[in-house]
Amino acid sequence: MDIIKPRTLSGFMELLPGKQTQFERLMSVLRDTYSSYGFAPLDTPAIEDAQILLAKGGGETEKQIYRFQKGDSDLALRFDLTVPLAKYVALHYNELTFPFRRYQISKVYRGERAQRGRFREFYQADIDIIGDGKLDILNEAEIPAIIYKVFRGFGLKRFQIRVNNRKILTGFYAMLELAKKSGDIMRTVDKLDKIGPEKVKKILLEDCGLTELQADEILKFIAIRGTNAQVLSALEGYAGKNELFDLGLEELKAVTVNLAAFGVPEENFAVDLTIARGLDYYTGTVYETTLLDHPEIGSVCSGGRYDNLAGYYIDKALPGVGISIGLTRLFYVLDEQGLLNPNLPTAPCDALVLPMTADAACAISLAESLRSNGLKVQLYGEQKKFKQKMAYADKIGVPFAVLLGEDELAAGKCTVKNMQTGQQELLTPEEAAAYILSALTANNAPLILEK
Amino acid sequence: MDIIKPRTLSGFMELLPGKQTQFERLMSVLRDTYSSYGFAPLDTPAIEDAQILLAKGGGETEKQIYRFQKGDSDLALRFDLTVPLAKYVALHYNELTFPFRRYQISKVYRGERAQRGRFREFYQADIDIIGDGKLDILNEAEIPAIIYKVFRGFGLKRFQIRVNNRKILTGFYAMLELAKKSGDIMRTVDKLDKIGPEKVKKILLEDCGLTELQADEILKFIAIRGTNAQVLSALEGYAGKNELFDLGLEELKAVTVNLAAFGVPEENFAVDLTIARGLDYYTGTVYETTLLDHPEIGSVCSGGRYDNLAGYYIDKALPGVGISIGLTRLFYVLDEQGLLNPNLPTAPCDALVLPMTADAACAISLAESLRSNGLKVQLYGEQKKFKQKMAYADKIGVPFAVLLGEDELAAGKCTVKNMQTGQQELLTPEEAAAYILSALTANNAPLILEK
Repeated sequence: MDIIKPRTLSGFMELLPGKQTQFERLMSVLRDTYSSYGFAPLDTPAIEDAQILLAKGGGETEKQIYRFQKGDSDLALRFDLTVPLAKYVALHYNELTFPFRRYQISKVYRGERAQRGRFREFYQADIDIIGDGKLDILNEAEIPAIIYKVFRGFGLKRFQIRVNNRKILTGFYAMLELAKKSGDIMRTVDKLDKIGPEKVKKILLEDCGLTELQADEILKFIAIRGTNAQVLSALEGYAGKNELFDLGLEELKAVTVNLAAFGVPEENFAVDLTIARGLDYYTGTVYETTLLDHPEIGSVCSGGRYDNLAGYYIDKALPGVGISIGLTRLFYVLDEQGLLNPNLPTAPCDALVLPMTADAACAISLAESLRSNGLKVQLYGEQKKFKQKMAYADKIGVPFAVLLGEDELAAGKCTVKNMQTGQQELLTPEEAAAYILSALTANNAPLILEK
Repeated sequence: MDIIKPRTLSGFMELLPGKQTQFERLMSVLRDTYSSYGFAPLDTPAIEDAQILLAKGGGETEKQIYRFQKGDSDLALRFDLTVPLAKYVALHYNELTFPFRRYQISKVYRGERAQRGRFREFYQADIDIIGDGKLDILNEAEIPAIIYKVFRGFGLKRFQIRVNNRKILTGFYAMLELAKKSGDIMRTVDKLDKIGPEKVKKILLEDCGLTELQADEILKFIAIRGTNAQVLSALEGYAGKNELFDLGLEELKAVTVNLAAFGVPEENFAVDLTIARGLDYYTGTVYETTLLDHPEIGSVCSGGRYDNLAGYYIDKALPGVGISIGLTRLFYVLDEQGLLNPNLPTAPCDALVLPMTADAACAISLAESLRSNGLKVQLYGEQKKFKQKMAYADKIGVPFAVLLGEDELAAGKCTVKNMQTGQQELLTPEEAAAYILSALTANNAPLILEK
């Protein structure tokens, strides 16, 4: 038979089993957290009509998209989960109940130039709340509470959800008679972290055509820092001059106040006037999330409030608020930096049952008994020597080996071996299940380390 | 703004939230069951190099495949999960530990002619156990035990896992001096259920060129029926004439005996000599699973033992055993026939918290308290009238509404309303959580009905 050298395409993440187990743990936290807030799981096709996917058209998206013909059809792979959501809500508008809350954790595709740490197929983990005509500000406070739960679920403490409101920015620029330039200014201010205030000022003056006074006012504004109370208090100083600004300030205050009720500690949450988000469609609260010890990673969870989800597909006002986590890239970076907790077991099972006699029936029963107690159990069925069996247990990294030899069978027991400590216990199947379960539950170590 | 009429491509399943919840429940049973047997989750790219995906080449597959160029690359979407598994095992051979057990529940793509109930994008839910050079027969007994657990997990009792062994068939044909024709014969016998014994005989005589005597022997053989013990006993009558047959019979006996130890009842399992599976690469035990009250659906879970997983990619003997469930089609058929239990709640949450006062903070705390007790909770934040709030609860089909008005706030309690019975209880947040949890846990109704 001719052999074709196997390979996986570059830019496509394909993990070994241990790493995949680590990845699944993060996925599981996301699924559980999103579900616990009553978001419905959504699963849209990976392939859509290219015309529909590109309704918004143009730009980088069109260049990166995987687009192809099949028969007469002009098809494309989704490049994010927002456009398919917009299509879904427009298409099923009459069958959905609003506010419609959905989460989707799915792969998206972008044919980017291949480079280290950039992926052409990657998971996005999104939540959105869509209103029909209106959507209460309370939803804008709930979103960062969910972000908080997700990152705490990962085991992290040192992260910060940075929140701003586009109405405040737009209103402020209107005060400076810069309403028409607000888009350009926001995109420039968004770069503050990367290029610093001097370069921002230079762009504002030279490219955006601002006066020295206007630029200084903007720099003074985005330099407002302090506790959330201090920042809000400083903003009060601008109140009463512009309606949109005042509305944005009310919204920001509502979000801040309600976050406390959601149980989000002050240290994980900051009003940050430099956050604008590049995309033009955000109209209210905007979010970015940074790992405090790893600012170089950038925002790991971003999003905001928008007024018009599906204008390309339906003549209805569908405001919403949502966030997106680029899970594949986040996982890659965490792994690269050695932040995925290596002390968590990566075996696909909690216990490996090793029969030491020819009688498989007892080993099968033992394995089934452990499973019925909630354990993940692999039965090792190969005819190998004891040493090879233990080597297998070692290699797959299983936390517990359960040995069943003549002595154990005679006593109606099994030997449970802690593979890390080497400690052995002679236990009944029920005792064994309880012993292993309690050891595993005790190991509530964080998924991600902070160092 | 120009409006583009939204649509979803035909042949692509896109579910409304309630149906998606039903679908997710089946997925969750599969994930939990596969995991409980120590299978590692695997996630391979949806896009592969077309040359690699088509290494085996030819036939229907090539016509149906989604294949396209991106830059210089000749790409294709996976059409099953077996070829990507073969590639994965060959590529990572040195990094894997054998036996390697993986499950994968992922979408695959086939550009079939569009017709009702046929899908171009559909989920397959596969498990495989791959050995390096050898793989013990015990694994062939474990697979049907897992199928049993999956279908019991769906809530079904009236299903049958039909098992045969290709060595028995091949050996038997060799006894009749039909070794060279065994492939053709098996493919013909495989049609027995669909076309009946007379047509099978006709094809055997006319197309396969068998003698009357040979055809009669085959029909007599595949007519062997009865309990598993009776069938095995009838097979003993053929023993001692062909080595391969004898080996197959030993294997079939081992599978049958061990299944009892795995706790699979006799009524869910049948030795069935008519099962051959069309694919040539099966070499030992083969499986099909039918819903006894719905034979028209055909096999809902099939697979078997093979000797050579990845011969196209690596010069190693990699025997394995596996099964596949076509989840999207199964779901579609169950839904069409009204077999998805309509009594299970389809709301994305267990409880909907309805604040009846302007004070959001208490409602937020209540919702968080219910969540911390393990409930899925949506907080309804819109400023609407009581009637509209209750209409929302009705529409999303939430089992419990939790009302928080002035009276409740004053008493430090909340009103829990069972949306099905209308019954209301005034409870503390802790009592409410316990009350709702116990009501939900009591509802351990089957996911799929048997009627």
